[in-house]
Formats: sequence, structure tokens, C-alpha cells
Amino acid sequence: MFVILVYDVNVKRVGRVLKTARKYLTWVQNSVLEGDISETNYKKLKTELLRIMKQDEDSFVFYTFQTQNYSKREEYGLKKGGEEQFL
Amino acid sequence: MFVILVYDVNVKRVGRVLKTARKYLTWVQNSVLEGDISETNYKKLKTELLRIMKQDEDSFVFYTFQTQNYSKREEYGLKKGGEEQFL
Repeated sequence: MFVILVYDVNVKRVGRVLKTARKYLTWVQNSVLEGDISETNYKKLKTELLRIMKQDEDSFVFYTFQTQNYSKREEYGLKKGGEEQFL
Repeated sequence: MFVILVYDVNVKRVGRVLKTARKYLTWVQNSVLEGDISETNYKKLKTELLRIMKQDEDSFVFYTFQTQNYSKREEYGLKKGGEEQFL
């Protein structure tokens, strides 16, 4: 399944969230990751992130698609994702 | 076409970006909007947002899908989008 994850979390937890999410998905932009993962890994990812998050401060949105991939992705402006910029 | 827009812009431009994007899409979360729009409106939306954005400070990612809709969306934590919270 193809997954797009958008997060909005307290800066204190951004590092842990990114590190966890990047075990399963590819970082696209500051607050967005995506990837083709198994149902099992999707469940693991959610479990791990929900353990890290604070319900009253953080927010996650998961889009899941049974189709192989999105039709198109267009990016404009700063490239904040990617391997090379990850600390 | 179905569009998911994720933005990451300087706080000075968040209001204008949201106001513009919400003419075409529905606000889902702090930095995410989505909606089923025509090709023409998608072009208008991009043109308007690219006029507002600063290339060296802001970032937009547009996912477009020819399929009617995503399979599923799951949200966790704070609900930051929606009509009622828009100023």
C-alpha cells in the first residue's frame, strides 16, 4: 500500500518522529513522508508514532492508497526533505 | 482530479496561503488541504500560490490523483483543520 504521512508535532518530538517514520517511509518535505509499505509495517509505524505523540499537542494524518502510487507529485520552493538534509 | 496539498511557509504568509488554498480545497490539518477539483482550478490554485510564496523560504507539495479519492485517511491527535477553527 502507498502511504502519505503528514505530521505536525511539538518541536521537542520532531526528531523522534522523523527517525521513527523514516524507518518505514521516505522523507519528502519538512512535515511529509511517503512510501510503499506492507500492511504489517504500516501498523508498526502507527503503533510506534502513537507511542511517541502527545494527543493534545501533536497531529498525524495518514493517507493510504491501494493503488501503486500517486499520479504525480509537484514540489515548489524549498526542498526540506531528502536524505542529505537529515540530521 | 483529487489533490492533496501540503505547505510549509513562513508564518507571515500562512494566512494568505490558507485563504487562497481554501477557495479550492478543504482544510484537513494545520498544513494540509485536500479536495476534488478540476484541472483548470488546479492550475489557478498553483498560479495563485506561487505568486504568494517566497521560493527561498516556503515549500509546497502537491499530490494529484486521477482516481476519485484516496482509499482511507486516518487522523490522530489534535484536529487543527476544519471550518470552525479557521480565523
